Amino acid sequence: MDEAQLHQHIYSRSAQLRQAFPGVLVGPGDDCAVLTGPSGPLLFKIDQLLEHRHFSSATPVDLIARKALNRTVSDIAAMGGEPLYTVIAAVFPPHYLHERELFDRLQYWAAHVRAPLVGGDVAVGAVVGGQLPALSLSVSMIGTPMSPRGPVLRSQAQIGDELWVTGRLGGSFGSGRHLTFEPRLEEARWLCTQLGQDLHAMMDISDGLGRDAARLGQASGVRVELEGTRMPLHDGVTVLAGASDGEDYELLFAAAPGAMSRHLVRSPRAMMFTHIGSITAGNGCVLHHGGLATDAENLGWNHQS
Amino acid sequence: MDEAQLHQHIYSRSAQLRQAFPGVLVGPGDDCAVLTGPSGPLLFKIDQLLEHRHFSSATPVDLIARKALNRTVSDIAAMGGEPLYTVIAAVFPPHYLHERELFDRLQYWAAHVRAPLVGGDVAVGAVVGGQLPALSLSVSMIGTPMSPRGPVLRSQAQIGDELWVTGRLGGSFGSGRHLTFEPRLEEARWLCTQLGQDLHAMMDISDGLGRDAARLGQASGVRVELEGTRMPLHDGVTVLAGASDGEDYELLFAAAPGAMSRHLVRSPRAMMFTHIGSITAGNGCVLHHGGLATDAENLGWNHQS
Repeated sequence: MDEAQLHQHIYSRSAQLRQAFPGVLVGPGDDCAVLTGPSGPLLFKIDQLLEHRHFSSATPVDLIARKALNRTVSDIAAMGGEPLYTVIAAVFPPHYLHERELFDRLQYWAAHVRAPLVGGDVAVGAVVGGQLPALSLSVSMIGTPMSPRGPVLRSQAQIGDELWVTGRLGGSFGSGRHLTFEPRLEEARWLCTQLGQDLHAMMDISDGLGRDAARLGQASGVRVELEGTRMPLHDGVTVLAGASDGEDYELLFAAAPGAMSRHLVRSPRAMMFTHIGSITAGNGCVLHHGGLATDAENLGWNHQS
Repeated sequence: MDEAQLHQHIYSRSAQLRQAFPGVLVGPGDDCAVLTGPSGPLLFKIDQLLEHRHFSSATPVDLIARKALNRTVSDIAAMGGEPLYTVIAAVFPPHYLHERELFDRLQYWAAHVRAPLVGGDVAVGAVVGGQLPALSLSVSMIGTPMSPRGPVLRSQAQIGDELWVTGRLGGSFGSGRHLTFEPRLEEARWLCTQLGQDLHAMMDISDGLGRDAARLGQASGVRVELEGTRMPLHDGVTVLAGASDGEDYELLFAAAPGAMSRHLVRSPRAMMFTHIGSITAGNGCVLHHGGLATDAENLGWNHQS
């Protein structure tokens, strides 16, 4: 079973969740779950980072910690949320030498986004067949939706919306940017505050623009049209790579027509927003480039492949 | 570095957490973190289950799911809490055949304790040196302290308290009970309701009675005295094994003198509580048995060894 099939199974089994548990406002399928807490809305997320898959054995401890934390922060930002608290489960190889340093850097990066590391679990993986187990970190975070906007789902894009993206795209893994990216908390705050209810849908594009834009379209029941010539690319990155490379951790969002142009002039200079496409009637996700219309749905990163 | 040294490092680095983040009521070192949520107290926990370490490759999928969930539920119960929501990160070996079934059983056991599975992450571990990666599950849960008692910490035992334990002890791993134990949510509810503020301190004893009782004593700044002849043992388990075997997931609690005897007569018949010792002035944890006083602190399960 590939990742998409498993997700389909999970989403179909989770469809009835809200009937049995009315506190579940959004279950599996968005960047975070949205929940009714004891007396207020909560965001809840878990993500994981694996040696050999998300980072190499040569990666410095500080960058492992930074990426582990910021992947989850990116998901909180993608909901229009503020991170609140962090817990982490770690699996170490036996005789791992950097336990203290790794904890210290995880604690640092958690405090850096004001989501202190408040608990965790440590286990030593078993050596099987003489092979050391991989280092792995599972990061779980509670957040809260920004007030008064409330959580921004990926499922609320509307026909006629403009599609925008933060930052630049492509080449993240090869360049090392996948370790040092800045999660777009500031941009999410600005968008929630300035656009308010004109910010219709948002998600992060950790699996690649094409694949993730298709998910936004499918969740919203609309068609996504991406314009290749508009895409903000890192130096040396082709349009096709920009649409298919994963690990960008930028925000993709759908806004009411004209909303961004009314506010963009007042956006902080450090923030970069680019209008890359539109939401139309229908389904699917298409990349227009060089006179061709490419199905963008199968561009991007499949963690299972 | 062994587990105890790493914990010491983590606790010392976390001691100032509350000054920087006043919402952190209890940080690392108890069964769960206790936090100020957007408008109410929260419990927050992560725990993990690893193939080859916490279960064997031959373990049925349903029992893997059950243990993974119930380990974390046990920690919520140990705080006098109710589980609310669950997220899970899973690492599968490549071409794992039981993904759907495992998800279904995780969802079942989460719903069973009214803490629905609302999100997660799935990754496929890398094959290194021809060796399949281990299956691992990281389970993170939000809970809420039972009202009006509030969270029950391990650090509030008082000199003169009676020390009690739920259920029976020992032989959990060998007997398979480590896969099928019932987390003591009902018992925790009853204790919080009946004893109220006379329930001073509580924790679960997943690492073994001796080691965990010593932790309760150290956290509370008191001495713990265990009476070997009083220990409720499973059939065929010796006193020393009962004090040192881990994976029991029973609750150990300190109550004001006489409080339990005033309420015990009205406890449901399915619940079992045993008075196994006392809290005295001093430090350390001693097991009295056969005319000997054994240092109980180094009995029990070290996940690093």
